[in-house]
Amino acid sequence: MTQTTPTPPTDEIRVAVSAVIFSVRGLSESACPVLALPLVRRTRDPFEGRWALPGGWLNAAENLDAAASRTLEETTALAPTYLEQLYAFGAVDRSPTRVVSVVYWALLRSDEVDAQVAAHAAAGDAPENVEWFAASELPALAFDHNEIVDYALWRLRNKVGYSRIANGLLPEQFTLADLREVTEAILGRRLDPANFRRQVENSNTLIPTDRFRTGNHRPARLYRYNRDVELAERGPLIAPR
Amino acid sequence: MTQTTPTPPTDEIRVAVSAVIFSVRGLSESACPVLALPLVRRTRDPFEGRWALPGGWLNAAENLDAAASRTLEETTALAPTYLEQLYAFGAVDRSPTRVVSVVYWALLRSDEVDAQVAAHAAAGDAPENVEWFAASELPALAFDHNEIVDYALWRLRNKVGYSRIANGLLPEQFTLADLREVTEAILGRRLDPANFRRQVENSNTLIPTDRFRTGNHRPARLYRYNRDVELAERGPLIAPR
Repeated sequence: MTQTTPTPPTDEIRVAVSAVIFSVRGLSESACPVLALPLVRRTRDPFEGRWALPGGWLNAAENLDAAASRTLEETTALAPTYLEQLYAFGAVDRSPTRVVSVVYWALLRSDEVDAQVAAHAAAGDAPENVEWFAASELPALAFDHNEIVDYALWRLRNKVGYSRIANGLLPEQFTLADLREVTEAILGRRLDPANFRRQVENSNTLIPTDRFRTGNHRPARLYRYNRDVELAERGPLIAPR
Repeated sequence: MTQTTPTPPTDEIRVAVSAVIFSVRGLSESACPVLALPLVRRTRDPFEGRWALPGGWLNAAENLDAAASRTLEETTALAPTYLEQLYAFGAVDRSPTRVVSVVYWALLRSDEVDAQVAAHAAAGDAPENVEWFAASELPALAFDHNEIVDYALWRLRNKVGYSRIANGLLPEQFTLADLREVTEAILGRRLDPANFRRQVENSNTLIPTDRFRTGNHRPARLYRYNRDVELAERGPLIAPR
């Protein structure tokens, strides 16, 4: 394979899709769960051998959302229930050829990831060249993918409310301590439990249930996320067509 | 000109940019100011004669942001200080040929619009086929542009805080009554002045100045927007490079 990068015709612009999939995972047996994302090792130029976001080319007969789901599934075997468009990256110099990448993102519960990985391992079609990386300790990625992950992290840390974190990363019912621990993994720092409880309760985005988790500690109330808030956040583009 | 639409090669996907520019304008001498946007009448197929969002094709040597500014300027002679990416629209059936449109949006003060329009009129290079329309009374637009405007309106009404409305649509200093009237034009309904004041004051996104506007009414304090909030909202993609 030649190492020279072919120069594209000046009028050629291609459209790709990529996905940033966040989950909170224990990446080794000893370590605490951290915010993590799956990357795919490139097997061809450009950037052969480097890690990159899962993705691929948009087909002419395929909607953007469908392309994002298809390429994510083909490269990682992951199938989130919902991918949201994050941003279109189109700097002229982001790739040796001219590529506009429409990037999607999703939050995925760790048990969903485990179940999907286990199903593919059992079927003998586990994807190759895929690994989960801690979001805070990424290597130098292909293209502008470090910049894309930085932007996704910024959106997650600044613009995603507790309701969506609860919906995306926690089971159907959860305690405020569960939510705080996941939020701490996202922010990469400890939060004061009393302040956190007050903020969540003031946000009106979670609904207390009548159930409690019991165990070694004193009983902790279980909450669920407020589906009305989440649907409103998604906006009119998500309406069924 | 033939009425048949040529079928593109199946692998051809083209990238366009469009812009939704919101301002609050009096569209006739008698009427109250309303939320409005400029549209361009199409002079060729497809959708010849219909109104469409300003925009055009992305050039291979041009970044997305630059293309959005250039095509907006070419079609409407408007030059907002800041265009923000809104969403990439890429449904297969949104155009007779396959086009992915990266849509930008901006808020523009009415006096800025007037000054830019007047400058071009004086220079004799005023754009043709451009008109401002009330956002609530749009005709059937070309392509999926009604859907795009609906999405932009949803974002404006649901996700844009008082700070950005103040920065985008009002002069440097303004009263809470000014801000309420612009917000009422955006929402298309009246707001309770006392509730509105309380919400704005609780949001901490505006800074009271020591100055007051005097006149027929009792003196009204002037506010300015909090630039720190606004820069934080824009996120890491806006960092100087």
